[in-house]
Amino acid sequence: MKTAFVIFDRMTALDLIGIYDPLTRLKSMNFVPDFNWQFCAFTEKVSDDRGLRFAPDTVAEPLSAYDIIVVPGGFGTRALQHDRAFIQWLRSAAPVKLKTSVCTGSLLLGSAGFLTGKRATTHPNAFEELKPYCETVVVDHRIVDEGEVVTAQGVTSSIDLGLYLVERISGREARARIAKQMDYPYNEIARSMSPGEPIPSSRL
Amino acid sequence: MKTAFVIFDRMTALDLIGIYDPLTRLKSMNFVPDFNWQFCAFTEKVSDDRGLRFAPDTVAEPLSAYDIIVVPGGFGTRALQHDRAFIQWLRSAAPVKLKTSVCTGSLLLGSAGFLTGKRATTHPNAFEELKPYCETVVVDHRIVDEGEVVTAQGVTSSIDLGLYLVERISGREARARIAKQMDYPYNEIARSMSPGEPIPSSRL
Repeated sequence: MKTAFVIFDRMTALDLIGIYDPLTRLKSMNFVPDFNWQFCAFTEKVSDDRGLRFAPDTVAEPLSAYDIIVVPGGFGTRALQHDRAFIQWLRSAAPVKLKTSVCTGSLLLGSAGFLTGKRATTHPNAFEELKPYCETVVVDHRIVDEGEVVTAQGVTSSIDLGLYLVERISGREARARIAKQMDYPYNEIARSMSPGEPIPSSRL
Repeated sequence: MKTAFVIFDRMTALDLIGIYDPLTRLKSMNFVPDFNWQFCAFTEKVSDDRGLRFAPDTVAEPLSAYDIIVVPGGFGTRALQHDRAFIQWLRSAAPVKLKTSVCTGSLLLGSAGFLTGKRATTHPNAFEELKPYCETVVVDHRIVDEGEVVTAQGVTSSIDLGLYLVERISGREARARIAKQMDYPYNEIARSMSPGEPIPSSRL
């Protein structure tokens, strides 16, 4: 089981690291021993929106062979959603069975066409921007699970999304043990919406 | 106001990024316009405990001129707390007015002598290890504020510590606005202990 953590200039580091921590514990805590991951970028150099430099493992290589992709948000998404070369690269993730985003990362999934006909969420400041890309913008759930695509709200929802995916992949006990190791007292407070659930009234 | 984010091999990235996000918003959201920071390491190369590579801004340079130091935890601390060269370097932070740690980062503050006669906390798995370094290990507060030294519990307490320090530096409104921008619904749930507060009964 192979995960691509997509990184790009002016992303928000916590969007990425908040989901990276619980997911990678699937390996370090031996729930999914063959769980592995790479940091995938479209450019050689990547800095977050506050100057922290990241070193990608792959540059501009297709994303098609991964089982999971994770797309963080950040101010960089505002330009990247209109960057044809970047979005074409992101589209190489079309066959990936589980596409996920945190915060405004959903604008990138949306621009790549992955949210068409689906419900999705994003940072509360970007609900209007997400609208053209999806069927319904869900505003009252921290995580929106549409099966092949799972989107989360702003920045710190990255941790809740990570724990949600841990449970989806390895079950409730794995989630509880990983949350405990992360010393996370807010586990299971966050509301999530599953594929089968009816569309809530509070939406854009 | 200048912050040193101390980074080292086999640290836990979320310990660092969870406090880095709220603190650096003091600048990006204009609460402390002259707030700035550097990533400070003792070695040229730094990878977290799961392979993510970080690029330090300074290597083996004294930490004495900073106003705040932030020390994350992670498995790397278990060896580093006994690494004389590293601890001697960390001791250069002695004049720094606000020394903070997340998770087992407190073992490093402790080994450097910064917890002597003070109350402190750490990841629940490391309470016993912290004991020799401080006066009292506090087990029932997420954040322990001893004035010049503030320690937090495990991994995800990094976010709570960051918001706590935002409030200490810039007040309640700054904290509320930064927590909102971080889309953090758990703001102000965490218990913290202040310098004046009596020692609680639940301690080691």
